[in-house]
Amino acid sequence: MSATGAPVPDDAWETLRRLPRGRTIEIETHDGHRWRGTLVPPHDLSGERVVQIKLDSGYNVGVRIDPADRLRLLDEETGNGGNGGNATAPSRARTRDGEPWVALLSTGGTIASRVDYRTGGVRPVQDEAELLSFYPDLERDGPVRVTPVFDRLSENLAPEDWQTLAREVGRAFGEGARGVVVAHGTDTLAFTAAALSFQLENLPGPVVLVGAQRSPDRPSSDGVTNLAAAVRLARTAPIGEVVVVMHASLSDDRFAIHRGTRVRKMHATRRDAFQSRNGPSLGWMDAATVHWNTPPRPAATGPVRVDDRLGDHVGLLWLYPGLSPARAEAFSKDLRGLVLAGTGLGHSSTVHLAWIRAAVALGTVTVMTSQCLDGAVDPFVYATGRELLRAGVLYADDLLPETAYVKLLWALGRSSDPREVAALMLEDRAGEFTGRRLAEGDR
Amino acid sequence: MSATGAPVPDDAWETLRRLPRGRTIEIETHDGHRWRGTLVPPHDLSGERVVQIKLDSGYNVGVRIDPADRLRLLDEETGNGGNGGNATAPSRARTRDGEPWVALLSTGGTIASRVDYRTGGVRPVQDEAELLSFYPDLERDGPVRVTPVFDRLSENLAPEDWQTLAREVGRAFGEGARGVVVAHGTDTLAFTAAALSFQLENLPGPVVLVGAQRSPDRPSSDGVTNLAAAVRLARTAPIGEVVVVMHASLSDDRFAIHRGTRVRKMHATRRDAFQSRNGPSLGWMDAATVHWNTPPRPAATGPVRVDDRLGDHVGLLWLYPGLSPARAEAFSKDLRGLVLAGTGLGHSSTVHLAWIRAAVALGTVTVMTSQCLDGAVDPFVYATGRELLRAGVLYADDLLPETAYVKLLWALGRSSDPREVAALMLEDRAGEFTGRRLAEGDR
Repeated sequence: MSATGAPVPDDAWETLRRLPRGRTIEIETHDGHRWRGTLVPPHDLSGERVVQIKLDSGYNVGVRIDPADRLRLLDEETGNGGNGGNATAPSRARTRDGEPWVALLSTGGTIASRVDYRTGGVRPVQDEAELLSFYPDLERDGPVRVTPVFDRLSENLAPEDWQTLAREVGRAFGEGARGVVVAHGTDTLAFTAAALSFQLENLPGPVVLVGAQRSPDRPSSDGVTNLAAAVRLARTAPIGEVVVVMHASLSDDRFAIHRGTRVRKMHATRRDAFQSRNGPSLGWMDAATVHWNTPPRPAATGPVRVDDRLGDHVGLLWLYPGLSPARAEAFSKDLRGLVLAGTGLGHSSTVHLAWIRAAVALGTVTVMTSQCLDGAVDPFVYATGRELLRAGVLYADDLLPETAYVKLLWALGRSSDPREVAALMLEDRAGEFTGRRLAEGDR
Repeated sequence: MSATGAPVPDDAWETLRRLPRGRTIEIETHDGHRWRGTLVPPHDLSGERVVQIKLDSGYNVGVRIDPADRLRLLDEETGNGGNGGNATAPSRARTRDGEPWVALLSTGGTIASRVDYRTGGVRPVQDEAELLSFYPDLERDGPVRVTPVFDRLSENLAPEDWQTLAREVGRAFGEGARGVVVAHGTDTLAFTAAALSFQLENLPGPVVLVGAQRSPDRPSSDGVTNLAAAVRLARTAPIGEVVVVMHASLSDDRFAIHRGTRVRKMHATRRDAFQSRNGPSLGWMDAATVHWNTPPRPAATGPVRVDDRLGDHVGLLWLYPGLSPARAEAFSKDLRGLVLAGTGLGHSSTVHLAWIRAAVALGTVTVMTSQCLDGAVDPFVYATGRELLRAGVLYADDLLPETAYVKLLWALGRSSDPREVAALMLEDRAGEFTGRRLAEGDR
């Protein structure tokens, strides 16, 4: 286990140093471990005799090479060329005419990042080749065309980026993609999923948003398995929906399929951070199966319709005790649309009634949701709700606050007439209302 | 099953009409049902021959009386006077010297409301007697002194009301209460629980906040069982904490005990709407047992300390894609303290860095939490976090956004020096940080 030292001509390290990434290897260490997998690019650990190997399980390990370790080159022996050779070839060139292919739109985020060991932080990968080097199995079942759209952490994406993405998805289907995968940072992934759900109609195949809670070069990364699942779903599912695929639990072999309008990031770090709210996920999948909990929207025939119009001057305000009406009013100034995340069944303190009434009178479409996240708003149970309703507030059933915000941007892109916007808001467009009758226990 | 009709002198209805509320009765209906319980005040259904009976299970039923039904007065027969007679006597008068008693502070909300059948809405009960009439078993195990503090839906409570409540709790312990129950609307119950957690120190007994998702006159009300559990915990638990007791599931016989700083209303309507975030609840209880998942803070000796000071000009802002920096800045104007509910590990778009930096420079204590609700913020993983940290933002580990807001009000009531406030914010005062080392799966 020597850490450094002069090169030893016949030890495994010298061979490994020169070996192209993507080769399938096996290392038998002098102390009895056996590591088998694909060689991936090293971290900033040069000189430390460490190689990174992507195991068949999808995990990466860093193995420190001892002069006594033994190396076998498995793909030379079997003559199959390995998977990793793909990593440096432009993927588009490998698409044969007529063969179904998946479009992978890369936007940045952890799924396309790596740990920078100098800062301890995470930085985006440099190019498509580096991205693919982390995902050597991506094209195991068929071609994937990678298009880098952004290279940004998702907290820095804005509604205009949703418009760009919608157009890119439309273009991919226009070029014949069987399905589209969007690799995305997890911070605002659910917002983008909701936006694409409203902007894209008549989808001829799945649009699968996917992210990672840990960068793909980390041993515990969920990026590899998530992305493989997303690509498989995009290639095979006969659905016409925008969905989110992420770990269903801490286990690496089961993935939840969330409807794009019903999902929320509910944990800062866990791999199963994404949860469908107010009901089960749309479905789940493992290596062998795709199971639908509720029927997905089937794939449409004919071309996709992209309507990327979005309004502006829309706000989302979470209410809380002690929020002064003046502050809430300052926040709401000049808004064309305002989503309130009220308490309980969709309540505000009565101190807010005056400015809400005034805002509605000035034409601000004002929509009530619940900060509980689960359950539905209802203006008819308490006096507070009835007063807000009389003030002109629109009660949005069980729309999630974030989805209501995205939908209001979308609706205001289509009409500036508050009544038309209200009608659009209450019409189910993309499964954003669960529509299930509440059981007694829920009432 | 005649719906109306002239009085039939010798049928059960005539007797029932004249019977005082609180009597223990049994009705054997002509079609073979048997209802046994305590007579409670009727709804606005007079003339329809319907009586309301609170069953031993805690549920209310409305029974339509047929002339052929048979009535038995159980408390006359057994001579024990029933439970319900308590309802109209002032409860304080029944406290014998030296007998342990529980203080019940009533603030309004569903737990102290009833359905108004004219409007279909819910209205607060009129007085203590009406409240107790819904809870005839309240004093089964010992005296309860009821003090109406407010009669308000909790969405209309504000931080100054938390101050009043803190003083009332202090007064009750000062007068010798064994424990204190606060009956509270559920909308902002978690905010109040957090506030009392910080304002009250050296608690000699439990402070138990309790609410109901359905008013106590409804057959499916959870108010009766919740309140009974809360009173029992307040009377018996040797703890010195502020906790929330609500249904643990849809079942009526198990109650979760939540730490006041770790709980959130997570469903608009379900009886088990309250959930501890980022870990298990503090404990649970059923009719026979109290079980602690983690050790509660033991009851203190010596008098309770009430420090009801709260700062002002504190805001809570949830971030989202498309929030304009100008709007966020307008919201944050003149704030002494600002809690941000950022995305993921505690991020904002970089478009907000300038005004955040300026606000911090002007002395606004700016605290970052995560809108995921679960997991902890961490500024060291991504460039965004490191920039926010450099801008002077305080990362608040796994404080819930709402708890952070309440705590910042509290901290600014104690100091106006941003460094002192920051130190107070990061010090565990009332179990507000879970403090558990994150397991690999969580990282």
